Amino acid sequence: MSNSTFSEIAQALREHASFIIMSHVRPDGDAIGSQLALGHALEEMGKTVYYYNEDGLPENLAFLPHSERITQPQGEVLDVDVAIALDCANKPRLGDNALKAASQAKLWINMDHHKSNPGYGDLNYIDSGSPATGQILYDFITAEGLPLSEVTRDAIYVAVSTDTGSFQYSGTTVATYEMAADLVRRGLNVGEINAKTYDSHPYRRVELTRRLLNTLVMAEDGRIADWQLVYATKEELQLKPEDSEGLIDMIRAIEGVEVAVFFEELKDGTIRVSMRSKNPSIDVCEVAKLFGGGGHTLAAGIRAEGTLDGIRDAVLAELRKRVDAC
Amino acid sequence: MSNSTFSEIAQALREHASFIIMSHVRPDGDAIGSQLALGHALEEMGKTVYYYNEDGLPENLAFLPHSERITQPQGEVLDVDVAIALDCANKPRLGDNALKAASQAKLWINMDHHKSNPGYGDLNYIDSGSPATGQILYDFITAEGLPLSEVTRDAIYVAVSTDTGSFQYSGTTVATYEMAADLVRRGLNVGEINAKTYDSHPYRRVELTRRLLNTLVMAEDGRIADWQLVYATKEELQLKPEDSEGLIDMIRAIEGVEVAVFFEELKDGTIRVSMRSKNPSIDVCEVAKLFGGGGHTLAAGIRAEGTLDGIRDAVLAELRKRVDAC
Repeated sequence: MSNSTFSEIAQALREHASFIIMSHVRPDGDAIGSQLALGHALEEMGKTVYYYNEDGLPENLAFLPHSERITQPQGEVLDVDVAIALDCANKPRLGDNALKAASQAKLWINMDHHKSNPGYGDLNYIDSGSPATGQILYDFITAEGLPLSEVTRDAIYVAVSTDTGSFQYSGTTVATYEMAADLVRRGLNVGEINAKTYDSHPYRRVELTRRLLNTLVMAEDGRIADWQLVYATKEELQLKPEDSEGLIDMIRAIEGVEVAVFFEELKDGTIRVSMRSKNPSIDVCEVAKLFGGGGHTLAAGIRAEGTLDGIRDAVLAELRKRVDAC
Repeated sequence: MSNSTFSEIAQALREHASFIIMSHVRPDGDAIGSQLALGHALEEMGKTVYYYNEDGLPENLAFLPHSERITQPQGEVLDVDVAIALDCANKPRLGDNALKAASQAKLWINMDHHKSNPGYGDLNYIDSGSPATGQILYDFITAEGLPLSEVTRDAIYVAVSTDTGSFQYSGTTVATYEMAADLVRRGLNVGEINAKTYDSHPYRRVELTRRLLNTLVMAEDGRIADWQLVYATKEELQLKPEDSEGLIDMIRAIEGVEVAVFFEELKDGTIRVSMRSKNPSIDVCEVAKLFGGGGHTLAAGIRAEGTLDGIRDAVLAELRKRVDAC
């Protein structure tokens, strides 16, 4: 797969009238921000735009201007010219209902920063050197002179800020900071948008943190940390999927911890296990595979049938072996 | 007080041979980072530099290259030409022992971004439009062509990053992001330095968070949140002052909370109260003054004699009145 050029993609946008813009299931800031950023540029060009996300708009991103336009598909088929997939590594991750909604589109455009993206569009632009799809869209919109409204400006900032951990992760480049400088020059209110992005969470997230901390176990001289969440607690606190997002970082960041594990009971009784390693010699993907899961060396997951205690014992036993061996 | 020019300050640095560089007590990233940034530039110029901080180097900043040079004064007097105070709003905040160490200096240089700084140096450069003293030093060093070594580069980044909450607070400007871009261009390892700055804390900080959360009380329909820390817990966990830094943000950020309060028992039996308001009509400084404390409208503190329960009841009663009134 080789990339289309920005001008080929821009030409396709100019030539068509109606668009469905989608992103991956369980959307994060880069997914929603990218949808809004490009979608609003198209609207400013006089186009008809439908913003669809299989899982709808997460509550914590509802502060984004124009985000009320993000719709959850209900099985309908849209009469649109072009389908645009943003920040979505493969087509199935758009979700079944979103794919159905887009099924009549004559042209597919696929823009993403995930290395594994196979290029499932008619026009593709995959740049894994970019820390966020939002940054690719910034490059695209400024290079092609497309409208960069306040909606687009704020959406790009939130997309890139959230996907770089507020300009902290290793993918953050010179261009990332220069982009941020330019967005501020274009009138972005840094204090306000960051307060809305980071400085506000529902009480239930704090209560969830407390519950998790009360189950925290440190093992192997503090090299393994794990905590757990039973389904009854999720129900009691009426948790939403985004409430636990990133919480594992709190125990991963403990000095001396090499592996952090989050055991979670799901509604259907299966157990979800999220593992984070800080030591490349401890390959958590290897452990995940033993239980039918997968992922990367430093971040892997499992979804398995069984009791929380049973799976916890089995997974920790495998991790202990590996921690002891290095 | 009017500012000296950068070139007047640079000339004074060039003309002298030995320096003591200081910052404020209870130093944070901007204090230590600024000391190291300017100090190492001077060392690269062949100068003799003493790095003094009244409270020494906090453990969480010990990853900074060259930080082992930060010394805690023990009552000695240094034979140096110039005393430099960085990021320190007034002279007494340098600390008694640091002031004694600097007492023989013939010239005082004072560089800071705190608006309230009265200009207590012979040469002063106060820029309250800068979000961090580290950013003033970046402007100074690059404008005057002073050495910008790797030590200085990393120290500036950490100073500015920590004082802007990772480029999030309202003081963050176009120049701040452009500075970050330039530091990356100069070879800064973004991922590594941020992991060291933010992604690592001792277990005791997580345990402290758990203890605090277990005392969390939400009152007035979730508009007031408070938690508390007794001295016995501090002793049991062997807490250091920096361990509780920023934790109050967790409860301040709860949706609906207008005032967050942290009650803390100190070693001498007095009670320290930290209050944060998100509503400008609820002036926590007014409440602080009733108990002999002070601060700003949205952030104020008290240190008072009494029992934790007694002071908590009295302070919360005053806060409730104000919350109910608006």
